[in-house]
Amino acid sequence: MNEKIRIAVLGYGNLGKGVELAIRQNPDMQLVAFFTRRDPQQLKTLSPAVPVYNVKDILNKRDDIDVLILCGGSATDLPTQSPEYAKYFNTVDSFDTHAKIPEHFENCDKSARESGHVAFISVGWDPGMFSLQRLLGNCILPDGNDYTFWGKGVSQGHSDAIRRIDGVQDAKQYTVPVAEAMEKVRNGENPVLTTREKHTRECFVVAKPDADKERIAAEIKSMPNYFADYDTTVHFISQEQLDRDHKGIPHGGFVMRSGVTGANGETKEMIEYSLKLGSNPEFTASVIVAYARAAYKMSKEGVTGAKTVFDVPPAYLSPKSSAELRKALL
Amino acid sequence: MNEKIRIAVLGYGNLGKGVELAIRQNPDMQLVAFFTRRDPQQLKTLSPAVPVYNVKDILNKRDDIDVLILCGGSATDLPTQSPEYAKYFNTVDSFDTHAKIPEHFENCDKSARESGHVAFISVGWDPGMFSLQRLLGNCILPDGNDYTFWGKGVSQGHSDAIRRIDGVQDAKQYTVPVAEAMEKVRNGENPVLTTREKHTRECFVVAKPDADKERIAAEIKSMPNYFADYDTTVHFISQEQLDRDHKGIPHGGFVMRSGVTGANGETKEMIEYSLKLGSNPEFTASVIVAYARAAYKMSKEGVTGAKTVFDVPPAYLSPKSSAELRKALL
Repeated sequence: MNEKIRIAVLGYGNLGKGVELAIRQNPDMQLVAFFTRRDPQQLKTLSPAVPVYNVKDILNKRDDIDVLILCGGSATDLPTQSPEYAKYFNTVDSFDTHAKIPEHFENCDKSARESGHVAFISVGWDPGMFSLQRLLGNCILPDGNDYTFWGKGVSQGHSDAIRRIDGVQDAKQYTVPVAEAMEKVRNGENPVLTTREKHTRECFVVAKPDADKERIAAEIKSMPNYFADYDTTVHFISQEQLDRDHKGIPHGGFVMRSGVTGANGETKEMIEYSLKLGSNPEFTASVIVAYARAAYKMSKEGVTGAKTVFDVPPAYLSPKSSAELRKALL
Repeated sequence: MNEKIRIAVLGYGNLGKGVELAIRQNPDMQLVAFFTRRDPQQLKTLSPAVPVYNVKDILNKRDDIDVLILCGGSATDLPTQSPEYAKYFNTVDSFDTHAKIPEHFENCDKSARESGHVAFISVGWDPGMFSLQRLLGNCILPDGNDYTFWGKGVSQGHSDAIRRIDGVQDAKQYTVPVAEAMEKVRNGENPVLTTREKHTRECFVVAKPDADKERIAAEIKSMPNYFADYDTTVHFISQEQLDRDHKGIPHGGFVMRSGVTGANGETKEMIEYSLKLGSNPEFTASVIVAYARAAYKMSKEGVTGAKTVFDVPPAYLSPKSSAELRKALL
């Protein structure tokens, strides 16, 4: 094996931990540093041999890092972090605010081109693998419809929204795809589906002592954007039940492309891609790490600028040679 | 729209017809010629406005063709055709003899590099889209197992094998994946599956008058490589029934990657990709046409050599700009 790809992680939340673990499954990579905004002394990682630095020291480590993985959030961290660190590092982020992707791309592209780095944005499963499947489906079956269903899985954003309601102690929200809608798509019926017809929302809520559960349930169900457009079920349970039965962060979903071929569109063709994930952040991290490898290879070849999953030859994701891949996987 | 991509087709069987129809669904492309080894006068296509030439005239048309799609068979046509025509054209083939892919790649790569063309090989769904999904699954979940199931669908090779049996007038063979085996994989059980446990074979046979059906069924079920290792069902039906109920060429299948993440591999992750195809050749042709677009774009950029689905950035498959793709599909 050649020299290992030296990876650093900025931000040690669920995603940062996922990256830490994913790198262990890829022998061509080495985790060389964590960076944090917290006090490095206080950060306990799963990798005692890997140094933890405060992020203000990050530029001193430029020569020791091949790819910096940005594990911050899309709302406030990545919009500034990604363009900033693309000035000094090859980077990968998982920016997932769909509407702001064009702007984020432009910002990162400018930094990365000027500094001569590769900046992957929006890597994960949606955006990420699901986007790639949507693209492939559209290219192969130009006469067709796209369907994306999410779940069953935990939505962090919806869980947070419930927790902000007065009288709520803790909560977890599951997004659930509607089986009947998926069956219609699979049958090639090309249904036009409303928000309500595609997903339901199931909430497990721990109320504070003496809180008015009826009011809490009503507030959840009527919350605009988050719940009002969905059929929502609310279960009140104890903190013990929540901790015991809902501690994981599973997720998943389905991307379908329903199309037609033939002289008169008489032939039905269906493509379906699905994920069933025991851990959303661990899987997302696994995708990110594969694209970190691609970032490293592309940078070695002199490629610069912002990139997405649409821009990389799939072989770059693998530690194996193209000849090995053709022999084993084609 | 810019100038259209000028496509020519060599070979007018099921796949060539599929390409003819697929190009109609892609407004950035134009079908400019058919080439055949038959008498061009005798070839009736679905596109009377597109000229049909004998293949011996193909080099006279070099300047009029951006990509030549090779629609011959993998057994005898493509091993010589692909390296030969890569000397003069950008090409796409659907070479599907897995064991000979490395050799075929080398032959095409040499021709295409020397002549300055792009030669895509083994494009379709398996090899092709299934290969791509296997690669992605392996890169994302390095600790895991691959499973590929085919069907339910018509196997041309197995149908042909039955037709060669004495006393058989006509036949169609369906490859059927075993539902129980797929469920075990989906449950993350990582089963080790024998050939027999993965697929069954269902045969619809028209016997000649007075033929010994019992002997025919016995010969089918004991045929080495094709049937002996499978649980095989044989149904004798009339030619009318065969023509009425089994005239299509449906196919499909499943690629699954069952893997684990986490500190001790304690988290199960499952990726599944499936196709349900009304027409195997029409879908294969639709994939090929998207890769013809990529061949054209790569050639314009000065890329040369043999390529596979592993080697092309997915954005090259689309007629849309990268900015449009990021906005609409990422």
